[in-house]
Amino acid sequence: MVLTLAAIAARLHLRSGGLVGVVAALALAFQVGNAGAEGPQIANFTLPNGLEVVVIPDHRTPVVTHMIWYKVGSADETPGKSGLAHFLEHLMFKGTAKNPAGRFSQALATIGGQENAFTTADYTAYFQRIAKEYLPLVMEFEADRMTGLVLTDENVLPERDVVLEEFNMRVANSPDARIGEQVAAALYLNHPYGRPVIGWHQEIEKLNREDALAFYHRFYTPNNAVVVIAGDVTGDEVKALTEKTYGKVARVAEVAARVRPQEPIPVAVRQLTMADSRVAQPSLQRSYLVPSANTAKPGESEALEILAQVLGAGETSRLYRALVVEQRIATGAGGWYQGTALDETRFGVFASPLPGVTFATIETAIDGVIAEVAEHGVTAAEIERAKTRLIADAVYAEDNQATMARWYGAGLTSGGSVEQITTWPARVRAVTPQAVQSAARTWLDKRRSVTGYLVKELPANQEKRS
Amino acid sequence: MVLTLAAIAARLHLRSGGLVGVVAALALAFQVGNAGAEGPQIANFTLPNGLEVVVIPDHRTPVVTHMIWYKVGSADETPGKSGLAHFLEHLMFKGTAKNPAGRFSQALATIGGQENAFTTADYTAYFQRIAKEYLPLVMEFEADRMTGLVLTDENVLPERDVVLEEFNMRVANSPDARIGEQVAAALYLNHPYGRPVIGWHQEIEKLNREDALAFYHRFYTPNNAVVVIAGDVTGDEVKALTEKTYGKVARVAEVAARVRPQEPIPVAVRQLTMADSRVAQPSLQRSYLVPSANTAKPGESEALEILAQVLGAGETSRLYRALVVEQRIATGAGGWYQGTALDETRFGVFASPLPGVTFATIETAIDGVIAEVAEHGVTAAEIERAKTRLIADAVYAEDNQATMARWYGAGLTSGGSVEQITTWPARVRAVTPQAVQSAARTWLDKRRSVTGYLVKELPANQEKRS
Repeated sequence: MVLTLAAIAARLHLRSGGLVGVVAALALAFQVGNAGAEGPQIANFTLPNGLEVVVIPDHRTPVVTHMIWYKVGSADETPGKSGLAHFLEHLMFKGTAKNPAGRFSQALATIGGQENAFTTADYTAYFQRIAKEYLPLVMEFEADRMTGLVLTDENVLPERDVVLEEFNMRVANSPDARIGEQVAAALYLNHPYGRPVIGWHQEIEKLNREDALAFYHRFYTPNNAVVVIAGDVTGDEVKALTEKTYGKVARVAEVAARVRPQEPIPVAVRQLTMADSRVAQPSLQRSYLVPSANTAKPGESEALEILAQVLGAGETSRLYRALVVEQRIATGAGGWYQGTALDETRFGVFASPLPGVTFATIETAIDGVIAEVAEHGVTAAEIERAKTRLIADAVYAEDNQATMARWYGAGLTSGGSVEQITTWPARVRAVTPQAVQSAARTWLDKRRSVTGYLVKELPANQEKRS
Repeated sequence: MVLTLAAIAARLHLRSGGLVGVVAALALAFQVGNAGAEGPQIANFTLPNGLEVVVIPDHRTPVVTHMIWYKVGSADETPGKSGLAHFLEHLMFKGTAKNPAGRFSQALATIGGQENAFTTADYTAYFQRIAKEYLPLVMEFEADRMTGLVLTDENVLPERDVVLEEFNMRVANSPDARIGEQVAAALYLNHPYGRPVIGWHQEIEKLNREDALAFYHRFYTPNNAVVVIAGDVTGDEVKALTEKTYGKVARVAEVAARVRPQEPIPVAVRQLTMADSRVAQPSLQRSYLVPSANTAKPGESEALEILAQVLGAGETSRLYRALVVEQRIATGAGGWYQGTALDETRFGVFASPLPGVTFATIETAIDGVIAEVAEHGVTAAEIERAKTRLIADAVYAEDNQATMARWYGAGLTSGGSVEQITTWPARVRAVTPQAVQSAARTWLDKRRSVTGYLVKELPANQEKRS
């Protein structure tokens, strides 16, 4: 059981950790063996209306994490309506005929529950953490709003202002977010992953009730959702509960296969420079177009996970050691891999130069580190350390229950299966040094990349005009 | 009459001339005055089924150019089905129940006619040039294939191979075309103008009969087309003829407004480098996102036309003089503006460095030329020369009839009206030096641009790996 938990948290760390560092607990010597096969007794079934349910028993405390995941994200939006998936996530709190706006959240507050929601390119999810006796209540509420949402101009238009304000806070006023948006847009020439999850401002501004309802009726249906319950419950209990609640929700739509426009083979080395007077420290980030767990050949995504650890995770990583410790040219450096994605995904490296150090110097150093791995591979010790860390991290994760639920939810709405998720630790353990070297050689090809430079002012030869 | 003709050809030159130079006939002193109001007696009417007709009488020879323009191009395709507009253009030659494949072309050959077809981001057009007595025959054929196309797997799939072969010849084997494709894809972050007209290879490969027919039934309907006839005919003659032929074609679809996803405000200076071993001479091209005739404020597009002439048209242009003649750092240099477009369009500059000259040197020179115009404007003499040229070019254009028909067709399928087209010369004449300077200052902002470098080999710091 521990192993699976560990792998889940490790995976999750990569996902949510994004550009920042790594949890400290590394050195733990961990018995890996075959224990993975003895992971939690996960129940997985599908109701007649098409709703998939995953139950991850965890009896340590009488608490339950309840999540519902819809297989729809910003990459499923109609072009020109960017931000709609995220906007609908906000609108899902506007109430139904049976439960007017506020009642669900108030009920949660009364019982001491927590709730949240999030949207990515591939999925939209809603979750609650509650004492176990309230699980039926929460399921009733979620089942009700799966198809019963009531939207009016009076509740839609003010929420659009809320989202626009969120855009201002999270994107417009954040140079880091803006350059991330620009790098993604430059990396994806054809695939909708190039579109920001929150949307383009001029398109968010025009979203309306009709757009939201059309999107809702197209994607919010039991046959396009996965309920994940982690906590002090059994599969049988949950089965009975879901049948009584979600089981009564009729399908409202047949959902088409999620076939998005794919990327052409990348051929151009791309760079972009963005200036913002609020930038205190210049930084560089590079994204490479690489396979995801869902598009990779067997073993390839796992090798990229290890490669990201060796190159970029924490202060023992090659990038950190070379740029920060040895060459003393950067204040920080690292790398990451976003494995969980339905379509071709990103492998990133990043660094912040010390004052007076040019981007050219930083890039030469980064390129040297990558070339070294591509040409000579990594050591067995580095790989072991990476594997141990990927597995060990989770043991110390603070919130395993939510972490596990998130991992299953994200995996199942990004092309994966329960079986693929539970066998992931074994597949990570099987990664060879050759596979890691091959991943670096094949995928960290600069023609597959966009490098973004974030600066306070454009250099003289890139001034505003001319 | 001459004025309108001239403006048409000048406009067309910008469109089809693309990156190359300008027709020589410049110095001609031309009487401009108000003669524009006395242009050809253009007839413009719409049949009850919604088909718009434009007639441009030209009685010099008993020849007629017949064109049909559909308001559909690659920017109207469904994402993931790129290349469909162009593929359908090919398939339009596959025959109908009434006129099996080959009969139309054979009839044209028999009467000594010429035919061709072309697809852009905004329109698809078919044209024939014939002796005037065959105009009814050609109209019968075109009216028949407007809604009568018969497609089978047997005639669709081999044609897809033809298109893929065209892709290989025109794109895959042409470094110039490939870098042009990459620059467009990098410039447009959201708008479908970033998609190549011929399509992405992996998507062309999957186009099929069902895709083509769905697209055909959606867009090929009289209410989505414009017939343009230039030549030895009168408006009344053509009216009677179109009523007898095209008038019988029933509408098959209502066509939605052409609302494409628009660009966010550009914020990042972008660059890309593409290497191809077949590159004999390195070159640089930069595209700026700028307003088109259809999106610009009054006078702005006309000012951009003049700016493109002053900066980049021919050997007297500022770019050519600075880079080729004075600084002797380039073998060629110039600029262009694609004014005719439904949505935000491109202004381009380009240069080819002499051996041993770096791109940095070339860009410093280009930037200097643009900064000079933005800061100090252009001279009255330059503006006069540009206006004279825009107007005079056409007088010497070899094929005015087709040129005029193309100008009206392109304008009317890119958001323009007959009135806008006929008044264009007067609006160009009205451009002030201030407007040209303002256009340079406002729109030639590097943050609105992508610069593409085409080289034989990637420089050492941009090698394939690392």
